[in-house]
Amino acid sequence: MNLYHFTLSTSRENLFNITSMVNDALCASKVKSGAAIIFCPHTTAGITINENADPDVVTDFLFGMNKAFPDRKEFRHTEGNSHAHLKASCIGASETVIIENGKLLLGTWQGIYFCEFDGPRTRNFYVKIIGD
Amino acid sequence: MNLYHFTLSTSRENLFNITSMVNDALCASKVKSGAAIIFCPHTTAGITINENADPDVVTDFLFGMNKAFPDRKEFRHTEGNSHAHLKASCIGASETVIIENGKLLLGTWQGIYFCEFDGPRTRNFYVKIIGD
Amino acid sequence: MNLYHFTLSTSRENLFNITSMVNDALCASKVKSGAAIIFCPHTTAGITINENADPDVVTDFLFGMNKAFPDRKEFRHTEGNSHAHLKASCIGASETVIIENGKLLLGTWQGIYFCEFDGPRTRNFYVKIIGD
Repeated sequence: MNLYHFTLSTSRENLFNITSMVNDALCASKVKSGAAIIFCPHTTAGITINENADPDVVTDFLFGMNKAFPDRKEFRHTEGNSHAHLKASCIGASETVIIENGKLLLGTWQGIYFCEFDGPRTRNFYVKIIGD
Repeated sequence: MNLYHFTLSTSRENLFNITSMVNDALCASKVKSGAAIIFCPHTTAGITINENADPDVVTDFLFGMNKAFPDRKEFRHTEGNSHAHLKASCIGASETVIIENGKLLLGTWQGIYFCEFDGPRTRNFYVKIIGD
Repeated sequence: MNLYHFTLSTSRENLFNITSMVNDALCASKVKSGAAIIFCPHTTAGITINENADPDVVTDFLFGMNKAFPDRKEFRHTEGNSHAHLKASCIGASETVIIENGKLLLGTWQGIYFCEFDGPRTRNFYVKIIGD
């Protein structure tokens, strides 16, 4: 019920502003009050909310995440993407946004982002709209 | 429906225990079972749950976050607060807490905190109470 | 309503795959559509979603978290577990998973994990199932 599925083609490492897609799901649901759950079904990608204005924030975000969670020679996972798994858990698989008056209750500067930490890949995400 | 708005005046960098404000919202809603969503509409602040007892946990938290996500000379965002954006995404814009018997189902040592990473500012947060 | 309580005995530091326990809660609730909230009531443990296949991902996860959030001599909290509090806030106290057709809408490789950062202890977690 009120579940929407989206697909993305990603580059190696990037943040994709998916706010308009979440808004499309909300409009389709006709829900006026409740919550939207945006969920990423992958283990080397995630969902976050951050600034929607200056693209340098995205560049700095990816740079800072690579410094905090670099690839390490001690990692044993043979796929070689343990740093991406760490980033995914740190950022989280989902965000929950309040719905009020038929709109996402986001701040002026907030956008919802799909975070690719191990692309390029074809990725999915879900938006579930729960009315109250 | 059952949406509550709060305002805070913050210092440069701090954690504010907002548990009592969330409890006030829950009481006003009269909801006995469901979930509370605590949402921060800013991109250099966030919401977390951590220890409500020893204030040194807060001091150590801010110190450790500054070590993991320091300001870096390579950052390009001209506002100079990319480290605060990183912390905000890492900690997250919201927390969801279960409501049972008209109370927040928090552990004994858990408090809900508004995390300021780039103050001083006037900040807002929302509490949405969803009954089931 | 539709609240389930689980107990775990943990080792010093580990990730426990609790997906089957969350599935048990979902089955007991008979809910077909909605959301599951998995909540940890402790301040040095958390809930995350990550790969359910290669156990080396868990090993690398714990190693990388210890590098990003090590114990530091400057920490003042006398219990000596400030690094565990930091990890708990970074990973978060809860996850929210969409329910569709009576099942958790997880990706193929996703499992839900209880993260122990300061064991061994007896730990609890809650699963709340909200239908829509």
